Amino acid sequence: MAKSLQEEHPQKAFGWAARDSAGILSPFNFSRRNTGPKDVSIKIMYCGVCHSDIHFVRNEWGFSEYPMVPGHEIIGIVTEVGSEVKKMTVGDKAAIGCMVGGCDKCDDCTKGLKSYCRDTILTYNYIYHDGTRTYGDNSDWIVAEEHYVVKFPDTLPMDSGTPLLCAGITVYSPLKYYGLNEPGKHLGVVGLGGLGHLAVKFAKAFGVKVTVISTSPSKEKEAIESLGADAFLVSRDLGQMKAATGTFDGIIDTVSVQHPLQPFLDLLKNHGKLVMVGAPEKPLELPIFPLLVGRKLVAGSAT
Amino acid sequence: MAKSLQEEHPQKAFGWAARDSAGILSPFNFSRRNTGPKDVSIKIMYCGVCHSDIHFVRNEWGFSEYPMVPGHEIIGIVTEVGSEVKKMTVGDKAAIGCMVGGCDKCDDCTKGLKSYCRDTILTYNYIYHDGTRTYGDNSDWIVAEEHYVVKFPDTLPMDSGTPLLCAGITVYSPLKYYGLNEPGKHLGVVGLGGLGHLAVKFAKAFGVKVTVISTSPSKEKEAIESLGADAFLVSRDLGQMKAATGTFDGIIDTVSVQHPLQPFLDLLKNHGKLVMVGAPEKPLELPIFPLLVGRKLVAGSAT
Repeated sequence: MAKSLQEEHPQKAFGWAARDSAGILSPFNFSRRNTGPKDVSIKIMYCGVCHSDIHFVRNEWGFSEYPMVPGHEIIGIVTEVGSEVKKMTVGDKAAIGCMVGGCDKCDDCTKGLKSYCRDTILTYNYIYHDGTRTYGDNSDWIVAEEHYVVKFPDTLPMDSGTPLLCAGITVYSPLKYYGLNEPGKHLGVVGLGGLGHLAVKFAKAFGVKVTVISTSPSKEKEAIESLGADAFLVSRDLGQMKAATGTFDGIIDTVSVQHPLQPFLDLLKNHGKLVMVGAPEKPLELPIFPLLVGRKLVAGSAT
Repeated sequence: MAKSLQEEHPQKAFGWAARDSAGILSPFNFSRRNTGPKDVSIKIMYCGVCHSDIHFVRNEWGFSEYPMVPGHEIIGIVTEVGSEVKKMTVGDKAAIGCMVGGCDKCDDCTKGLKSYCRDTILTYNYIYHDGTRTYGDNSDWIVAEEHYVVKFPDTLPMDSGTPLLCAGITVYSPLKYYGLNEPGKHLGVVGLGGLGHLAVKFAKAFGVKVTVISTSPSKEKEAIESLGADAFLVSRDLGQMKAATGTFDGIIDTVSVQHPLQPFLDLLKNHGKLVMVGAPEKPLELPIFPLLVGRKLVAGSAT
C-alpha cells in the first residue's frame, strides 16, 4: 500500500494546498525528504504570489494535479546543510525560485546551465527525481539541492525581495539578453503588475528611458511617481499610440491574458524587440503581417 | 471626370489582371507614367509567381483592390533611363522586387534603408506617390525609381532567376541576420516550395547542415537528390520528431497556411531561432509555454 503524503518522506511539513481548481487553499499536512549531502534546508520566512501560481491553482494550463502547494518565490533562513554543501551555512538568508532540479545528464546540466535543461523540475506540481511530487513555498520549510538555492543579500528586505525570485529574473534576463539595458535605449513596459513594476525599476537603474503602456489611465500616477517611469501611454488611446509609432527599441509585454500584439509591434523601431513574458491561459495570435519592415517579436522565458 | 486606367498616364501598357477574388487573370489594358529623371523603364522578360500573389489575387489578406495586375519578381531589359540615373543603361539586364517606393522623408529613407520605410509602396495593389495604383509584373513593361531597380548579373539565367527577387531575399536575409549562415550550423527548412527550395540552396552554399522538414515523405527525393539537403524529417512522424528534439540551431518556416509552431520550437537547441517567413491567411497561434527553456521565436519579413 502506498504511503500517505504525511509519511512518504521522513520529515513532517505543513502548508496550504489547493485541492481542486476552485482557487481556495486550505491547511495541508505532508512530508519532505531528509537533507541529503548536496541539499540545503530552509525555514521559509516569506513567499511571493506569482500569476503563474494562480494559473496553476486554477488549472488554467491544463496540467495541474492536486493536492498542490503553490509558490516559487521563496526567501528564508538556512536550517541545515548537507556534507557536500559549499556556499551556504546554517543561519544564512537564502532564496529559491521556480526550479529545484534538472536531468543532471544533458549538456546544459553538465555545463552548469541547469535552468536550460529540458527536463527541469519545477518547484511544485512536478515530479522529483525520487518519483514524489514537488510542493512549493506556501509551507513552513523546504529542502532543495544547493545548485537551486541562492544566497539572499543582507542589504535587501526579505519580505519585499521575494518577487525577485521569479518576476525579477523574468524581466531582468531579457533586458540583458536583448541589449535593452543600455543607457539611452527606450523601453516600453506593458502591464504594471508583478513583472511590470520590476521591469520599470530595473530599466531605470540601467539608465534606460521607460514608458509604461497600460489600458488603465489610473496607473499613470503609480508608474511615474512611485516607480519613476519617464512616460505613460494609454494603449486604448489610438491617438497616443499612433503618435508613438516607431519610437521604442524594445517592449517587454508582461500581460498574462490574451491580447492583440500588433499595436505593440507598431510601436517598435526597426529591429526593435517585443519580448513576451506573460503566459496567458489561451494562445496569443501571431499577426499575419507581423513585421513588414523588420521589427522582431521574441517570445520566451527569461531564465 | 476621372480618366480611364488606359489614359491616366501617357504610356500604354498591357497586362493580365484579376477583376475579383475568383483567382482568374484576364487581358487588361492600362497605362504607366513617362520615365522620369530618376526612373528606369524595363521591358519585362520573365516574372515569378509568389504565394503572396495568390493571397493578393484571392483577397485572402482582406485589402485587395481590383483590377489588380499581380507580380513582384521581375526580370527584364532596360529600355529607357532618366537623366539622373547613374547605375543603369539601356540594354542592361535589370530586376525589381516587391517595392517601388517609400516616403523619402523618414530616417530610413534618408539613410538609404528604404526597404524599412513604414510607408513603403508595394509593386502592386498599392497607391503610388501620384495617387494612382501600382501594377505588377504580369505586364509588358514597368517603370520604377532607380533605387528599386537592381542590375541582374549576366552569369545567371533570367528565367529561373526571378524567384530571387522575393523568395530569395526573404530567406537569404534572415539566414544572415540570425547567424544561420555559419558553416557547421544545423538549419531546418520547413516547406519545400518557392522559399524553401531557395533556403536549402543558400544554406548549402554557406556550408550549413540542412534538414528539410515536411509533412510529405514524397518530397524527400527532391530535397536530398535535387537540392542537396543533408537530411529529411517527416513532421507527421512523431518518433522522428522526438528523436530530433533540441538538435537545430535555427529553423526557417516557409509555410503559408495556418499550422502549429510548438513542434518546431521543440526541435531547437537553446537560444535557437524559429524564423517565420510565411504569411498565412489566418493568424498563427503563439504557444502558451512557447519556450520554457530559452528557445526563441522570431517573426518578420526578411528585407
